[in-house]
Amino acid sequence: MKNILVAQSGGPTAAINATVAGVVTVALSSKNVGKIYGAKNGIQGVLDETFIDLREKIKNNEDLVLLSHTPAAALGSCRLKLKDLNKDKAQFEKIVEVLRKHEINCFVYIGGNDSMDTVDKLSQYCKNHNITDITVVGAPKTVDNDLVGTDHCPGFGSAAKYIGVTFAELERDCNVYKTKAVTIVEVMGRNAGWLTAAASLARVNGGKGPDYIYLCEPAFSTEKFIEDVKAKLDSQDSVLIAISEGIKNEKGQYVSEQVQSGAVDAFGHAYIAGSAKVLEDLVREKIGCKVRSIELNLMQRCAGHIASATDIEESKMLGMKACQCALEGENGVMASIKRISDAPYVVEYEAVPVSQVSNEEKTVPKDFMNKEGNDVTEKMMDYLKPLIQGEVSQNYKNGIPKQMILY
Amino acid sequence: MKNILVAQSGGPTAAINATVAGVVTVALSSKNVGKIYGAKNGIQGVLDETFIDLREKIKNNEDLVLLSHTPAAALGSCRLKLKDLNKDKAQFEKIVEVLRKHEINCFVYIGGNDSMDTVDKLSQYCKNHNITDITVVGAPKTVDNDLVGTDHCPGFGSAAKYIGVTFAELERDCNVYKTKAVTIVEVMGRNAGWLTAAASLARVNGGKGPDYIYLCEPAFSTEKFIEDVKAKLDSQDSVLIAISEGIKNEKGQYVSEQVQSGAVDAFGHAYIAGSAKVLEDLVREKIGCKVRSIELNLMQRCAGHIASATDIEESKMLGMKACQCALEGENGVMASIKRISDAPYVVEYEAVPVSQVSNEEKTVPKDFMNKEGNDVTEKMMDYLKPLIQGEVSQNYKNGIPKQMILY
Repeated sequence: MKNILVAQSGGPTAAINATVAGVVTVALSSKNVGKIYGAKNGIQGVLDETFIDLREKIKNNEDLVLLSHTPAAALGSCRLKLKDLNKDKAQFEKIVEVLRKHEINCFVYIGGNDSMDTVDKLSQYCKNHNITDITVVGAPKTVDNDLVGTDHCPGFGSAAKYIGVTFAELERDCNVYKTKAVTIVEVMGRNAGWLTAAASLARVNGGKGPDYIYLCEPAFSTEKFIEDVKAKLDSQDSVLIAISEGIKNEKGQYVSEQVQSGAVDAFGHAYIAGSAKVLEDLVREKIGCKVRSIELNLMQRCAGHIASATDIEESKMLGMKACQCALEGENGVMASIKRISDAPYVVEYEAVPVSQVSNEEKTVPKDFMNKEGNDVTEKMMDYLKPLIQGEVSQNYKNGIPKQMILY
Repeated sequence: MKNILVAQSGGPTAAINATVAGVVTVALSSKNVGKIYGAKNGIQGVLDETFIDLREKIKNNEDLVLLSHTPAAALGSCRLKLKDLNKDKAQFEKIVEVLRKHEINCFVYIGGNDSMDTVDKLSQYCKNHNITDITVVGAPKTVDNDLVGTDHCPGFGSAAKYIGVTFAELERDCNVYKTKAVTIVEVMGRNAGWLTAAASLARVNGGKGPDYIYLCEPAFSTEKFIEDVKAKLDSQDSVLIAISEGIKNEKGQYVSEQVQSGAVDAFGHAYIAGSAKVLEDLVREKIGCKVRSIELNLMQRCAGHIASATDIEESKMLGMKACQCALEGENGVMASIKRISDAPYVVEYEAVPVSQVSNEEKTVPKDFMNKEGNDVTEKMMDYLKPLIQGEVSQNYKNGIPKQMILY
């Protein structure tokens, strides 16, 4: 009989609870599983021994579906990075002590880069100390889609769908007036432009979508940007632009940082502006037409009501795969997605060594962006399109989606 | 045989095209209707004679449904306010000349305050000049819900649903970390707090929703605001706040304006910040905890994918009512909604003199807000709840909702 612990870490997404649901699904259906615990607030909850009995909270398939459709991390999250394995063993000793105290054999940790670092270190620690009664497995998650070792990341597809749908709607909104106007929409992503690229999905039904898409990978030139905008304004009234939060100049300096250094407002408050806001000010100054900036902010990562059915299904499958690996004693692996083909869209679920994943970052390859650095290519579209297919049947009550609250 | 012209004006909404669909539905089903035109960009399109033949664009019920579910103004919009009736007749003469040239007998104008001013002036002009072959009728629309003469406005219910759903999702997202953090969300509304009040709908299924809701009607005190936030941070980690774009101090000065006067950033750009951004800076300075501001921006008015089925149905009914009034020669009226009861929710459609509506503004009554000025009352909830009921079955293709493009 094995006992299972699952926890979530890093930024929340619309799909991360589906991965918990996948873990619980396998655990509930296995004769060899005893306790099914969730740790509250990630690895912090392991250190604090704040466990939630998931057999009590999740009774039936209805509960599993509701959990899968609830956005953000239902078990809570943390941003705690474990210390260096060779320098500070106390933290690892404490974790193993807690796991043994509660007779946990399988620990599934769901998260992004930092969380896979935790899986890597903890599984290494167990190997190094011949701890064979504990298996640590990772399940990927990040809206940024920047994990290596997997074709794409759970949570990304739903965020991409939100972004594609929102750009399609913004295009309609911005086109109603006969007035020259520029709308700059900032999308999450400091170092990887995947989410910003998803703005291109507004085009899949023949719409124009954003006129320009600037990812954070190529160096961003404000001069070229103003030239681009002017050129487009010559032939049309409304110009809609997608930019990454993390656009940087040639020196690698964030565009948003350049304005913030030392700037204060009339009250003496520090001026902290996003990249879209900085470019809004620039367009106002250099072109002088109507201009607005929009940040998609938290909504892009927690909009469960417009989640991608493909993403939710894949996220659940990865939780199932991770739980199976843990039950089979595959210490130190991460469940991952291997794409077999784009159209028809076929994937396989596999397990990769987490050491290959942790602390790496997958940015957008050059052939996914155009040469001018102001749009994506067909190759990017082919990659993105399958990930947003299908809509989730949310369970609405009183006009608002029902949610599963675990604590 | 009568010919019909319909046009849209003011800010777009997720429901304004449903009203056009309502007009066209009645027109298509009437034996006495010949041409069905749409004017591009509102009354400007009448002056410019840029007409769209809607019989060509809308062939069947499928087209009507698609139009109803497409956000923003499919006929385009304008912000043109007609001149004073007694001072400048040329504009009115031109409009009547164009309408007569195209043998238009019924003109339905869909919009908010300014648009109803157009309906009022134009219908008055016709009456004053014994023009009996042209009937001008208004249909209400505004996400702000600030029109008098109708229980509520088409477009508001869908925006309210987006806001309620989004706050429910943000609540989940903001609650994942064990860190003191304040999230301030700015909702549209310069002088009427209806949309901000809709944040309370996040509570209908037992959720906590926003911790505070500050509408723009009562005077806003930054001192009291900081006190409120501190009090809540004493007992919980995450504090979620809804504020109106138009919160003002005791002197009636916009909170956002106070910071903007004379402020420049390091590049010498003018500092233009929304009210949430101003309060974010204030919390950072006075409390020093993690704080972020979010603007729901254009998304709240164009999110057709999460439109309220009740709103879309009512918007269509009002278009039908307006078209019927126009066909029956009821010059100078606006189609409107009379609420008979909250639960069960029952409404009637009627016609009110547009002169009572134009240039008036319906703000939130005192008994819809709590005495402290930091939340809404049950009375507000009872008013809001029926308006967000039901979800629209969007027609998705390739993962993105299909849209009806009229030009």
